Amino acid sequence: MSTLNVQLGDRSYPIYIESGVLNNGALLNRHIKGKQVIVVSNTTVAPLFMERLCASLDPALQVSQVLLPDGEEHKTLAVLEQIFDRALQDNHNRSTTVLALGGGVVGDMAGFAAASYQRGVNFLQIPTTLLAQVDSSVGGKTGVNHPLGKNMIGAFYQPQAVFIDPDVLDTLPPREYAAGLAEVIKYGLICDPAFYEWLQHHRDDFVARDKTVLGEAIKRSCAAKARVVAEDEREGGVRAILNLGHTFGHAIEAAQGYGSWLHGEAVSAGMVLAARLSVNQGWITDAEVARLVQWLEAMSLPTAPPDNMSVDTWTEHMLRDKKVIDGRLRLVLLEQIGKACIVDDLPQAELEAFVATFSPV
Amino acid sequence: MSTLNVQLGDRSYPIYIESGVLNNGALLNRHIKGKQVIVVSNTTVAPLFMERLCASLDPALQVSQVLLPDGEEHKTLAVLEQIFDRALQDNHNRSTTVLALGGGVVGDMAGFAAASYQRGVNFLQIPTTLLAQVDSSVGGKTGVNHPLGKNMIGAFYQPQAVFIDPDVLDTLPPREYAAGLAEVIKYGLICDPAFYEWLQHHRDDFVARDKTVLGEAIKRSCAAKARVVAEDEREGGVRAILNLGHTFGHAIEAAQGYGSWLHGEAVSAGMVLAARLSVNQGWITDAEVARLVQWLEAMSLPTAPPDNMSVDTWTEHMLRDKKVIDGRLRLVLLEQIGKACIVDDLPQAELEAFVATFSPV
Repeated sequence: MSTLNVQLGDRSYPIYIESGVLNNGALLNRHIKGKQVIVVSNTTVAPLFMERLCASLDPALQVSQVLLPDGEEHKTLAVLEQIFDRALQDNHNRSTTVLALGGGVVGDMAGFAAASYQRGVNFLQIPTTLLAQVDSSVGGKTGVNHPLGKNMIGAFYQPQAVFIDPDVLDTLPPREYAAGLAEVIKYGLICDPAFYEWLQHHRDDFVARDKTVLGEAIKRSCAAKARVVAEDEREGGVRAILNLGHTFGHAIEAAQGYGSWLHGEAVSAGMVLAARLSVNQGWITDAEVARLVQWLEAMSLPTAPPDNMSVDTWTEHMLRDKKVIDGRLRLVLLEQIGKACIVDDLPQAELEAFVATFSPV
Repeated sequence: MSTLNVQLGDRSYPIYIESGVLNNGALLNRHIKGKQVIVVSNTTVAPLFMERLCASLDPALQVSQVLLPDGEEHKTLAVLEQIFDRALQDNHNRSTTVLALGGGVVGDMAGFAAASYQRGVNFLQIPTTLLAQVDSSVGGKTGVNHPLGKNMIGAFYQPQAVFIDPDVLDTLPPREYAAGLAEVIKYGLICDPAFYEWLQHHRDDFVARDKTVLGEAIKRSCAAKARVVAEDEREGGVRAILNLGHTFGHAIEAAQGYGSWLHGEAVSAGMVLAARLSVNQGWITDAEVARLVQWLEAMSLPTAPPDNMSVDTWTEHMLRDKKVIDGRLRLVLLEQIGKACIVDDLPQAELEAFVATFSPV
């Protein structure tokens, strides 16, 4: 078993990475403080893993289950309320533990529910998608979408532990698997050139879902995220680099309707756009972008945005981004491959001219 | 002007108490950090004060207004969403400031919106009811109700400043005024016997709404609350004493339907119940309860619960209280007048026998 630590003072917590951790009752139960647990999952994941998880939990615990509908389009305040309904119907009190069993949507919603139920209860994460394992389960960002913007309502709320079981990825559908890899290569691009080279080198292993390579990628991704989050928990500065591709990506997700593009797919296309804009600044080369595109294409990820978004649609969504401060858009670009930077002085006209190049006339 | 400080490390903040503070633009604007403000108020309060407030704000600010419907029955997730809708429609970003202008319901909802919008933005409070001035605007408890329990969904989120203008109470309806006084005498009962005696001494001044006496009561109440909150921000221990009368009170509010009894009215009846239960423990005397009842009656506050609540209704609502930990109800009782204590070992049978004495057969 590998154990990483997210260093956040009195909110520090371990990330356990272990094959079969779902069956490790001793470890799981050690992190449950009270006598009650609410397992939040969804209708796709629960049939696969809920029984095994519940068999690992201490039989003395009162366990409630909440199964959310599957998909980003259900990451709403209205669906969140189902968690509160169940918690109250079953008389869960302030010492209860919310346990997220699922992908990014389940983790974000369960985490926001844990942050808000009785103003904050215990929270554990068992991510079951690659994207959740390498990204969304670590770092404490929780929340739901609003029709006008992604993740606009939420809280910074750290879990007390994250349990990552690479074995659960065996049942992950190809699109979900690829979407997670977009976030994996993101870490290489923003802060770890050696990891980027390693990922390029193992391209075929990722296509073949080689377990050893995948386990190593999960570890290095979590370690990168933990480092950045420890430095800047509430995204006052450097943490923003984790959003490479996300400003473009969120605009794609919102404009296409949540659930149409997977988050990781939108991030994949968004990273290519950020890379192209970095070329325009003279920072990286066309050849470097082509190499990135090749890798993403090998994983069957989109490398261009949809062709139905007007310049107005792009700017409308991007100006609602959380990274906009006092009307100024902050974009994450690449100073070089392996080093991201935050740009807040790109002229509006330049950005509009850029998105116009892939918008319908 | 009086200034109190709530001492919470890097989340410390001032409470300004001043006649006409609504017109003190220099002070208000000094606490607004970005270029955008969302004023959250309700349809009753806004016609009285919104114009004056907006005239005090820096004209360079982008100001959005959200007017909620008035009343505890509207303190819901669905109504909360109206704040997010407006914030996003008007492109408010992470450096915006949410300003609550209203009573406890407005403050709780605006505060939870500030805590959750883009995972947390700036927050200022201008409480316009006595109850909000002496209690709910100070201490960082924010949230909304659930049909199954009061304040069950929310966050601990401190404002950056609280501005209290005693002059705004001139227009406060008698029921709202009395409801605030219930929380005022609570501070005397739980932690300040000298204040309790002073309140008893000035009983007729409160009936007459004497401004000097009222100003002094606001100051002493805020100081008491600030002391307790500084000691225990997240209610791990001593802060629970602020809930004297609230376990019974919340059950009354929920069972009667939110908005039927005002919060302060339910707390008034609830404090009398807590006092009677304290007599049963042999801690205070019937004569002391009678004196409390007399004072509350002089303020036209209820001193007994409604007569339509069965033992099952009582216990069902009380066992959902946030102060229940692992099935054990924690009640705030009075060891003596001026000193509260937390009791978590009252036998369930004794509590049921107690509520049975005022339940219908």
